[in-house]
Amino acid sequence: MSKVFFSVTMSLDGFIAPEFMQLDQPVEKWLGEWMELQKYVFQQRFFRESLQLGDGGETGQDNRILEETYNRTGVSIMGKRMFDGGEQNWPEEAPFHTPVFVLTNEIRAPWERPGGTTFRFVNDGIESALAQARKVAGGKDIRIAGGAHAILEYLNAGLVDEFSIAVAPIFLGAGLRLFDGVDPHRISLNITEAIHSPLVTHLNYAVCRK
Amino acid sequence: MSKVFFSVTMSLDGFIAPEFMQLDQPVEKWLGEWMELQKYVFQQRFFRESLQLGDGGETGQDNRILEETYNRTGVSIMGKRMFDGGEQNWPEEAPFHTPVFVLTNEIRAPWERPGGTTFRFVNDGIESALAQARKVAGGKDIRIAGGAHAILEYLNAGLVDEFSIAVAPIFLGAGLRLFDGVDPHRISLNITEAIHSPLVTHLNYAVCRK
Repeated sequence: MSKVFFSVTMSLDGFIAPEFMQLDQPVEKWLGEWMELQKYVFQQRFFRESLQLGDGGETGQDNRILEETYNRTGVSIMGKRMFDGGEQNWPEEAPFHTPVFVLTNEIRAPWERPGGTTFRFVNDGIESALAQARKVAGGKDIRIAGGAHAILEYLNAGLVDEFSIAVAPIFLGAGLRLFDGVDPHRISLNITEAIHSPLVTHLNYAVCRK
Repeated sequence: MSKVFFSVTMSLDGFIAPEFMQLDQPVEKWLGEWMELQKYVFQQRFFRESLQLGDGGETGQDNRILEETYNRTGVSIMGKRMFDGGEQNWPEEAPFHTPVFVLTNEIRAPWERPGGTTFRFVNDGIESALAQARKVAGGKDIRIAGGAHAILEYLNAGLVDEFSIAVAPIFLGAGLRLFDGVDPHRISLNITEAIHSPLVTHLNYAVCRK
């Protein structure tokens, strides 16, 4: 049975993204802060190859973890805002290479990208998206890709089995908090593993319903 | 030269204490949430012995880290609110056994406790308290004991050399955030070590001024 998980990078002060991107403004400021947060990712060979950023990159433990996360993912689910931001910034060959379900009020036909990513737009809620994702997961796992609001909806509904947080050694000071609004009475956590790296700390948890 | 450090337990959603204790109300609710956060500490032999909570307790890595933190500390500095809460709840033999400087507007004579803890009340700011602490550190390190506000003042002033966070696998949902108001432009961090334990994850950082 497919597991439902999320995997994000978080600043030490709890943010997984800078303040909301203003879609009518230049993305440079937002991207600058986001790249500071995701700095370790940009140094990894697997990520550089996936996004066609050029040769080179680290090939150690952080790289292995990124690659494993990608390989276990049979399908992704994301919120509308994450999709809107990505639609403007992903390369034409979007970096998922699987079905992706987008939680949205917009009615829109599936959008196929070169390389195997197909975005499908779901209008009837998180449980419907998850049910549809299970059907196409192909024995792999289901990733709640983001953003924070979509992750929190699934987490608070008791629908997440496990998650990974890469804690970056930076402060953002402001932005989008991962756990703002988490319901402490619905779920409890077990630590699965913590992995030390000089660039980032990987925290892995299993989720139990209370 | 003595290092200046802090060492706290933080929930995964970023809180180091429940909502402010109301000093005119029963402490049971506050203490219940605080003990949930500090659960791993109460299971350690070193802590149980220090606070005279009875025999037994874990003697592994978490216990060793608590003991090392205690042993390196030659003097502590704390905010007035932490002192006020502690004054009501510490045993008569307060668990510091060193000089403790309390940042406060109150003018008060030193308060000696059995077992070697002496509280001294500093009215002229964090740098004065630190200068006084350096004089009595006796070759050991200086701990900013808390609360969050005192820690943040020292951190933002560039006066902290290193810190440890024990990330507890719980959500509090509300409370006192450790890094609320941290200034990302003043300091940067290097990861020193991350230590996995089934009960809590120890994150250690060195601080650099930018």
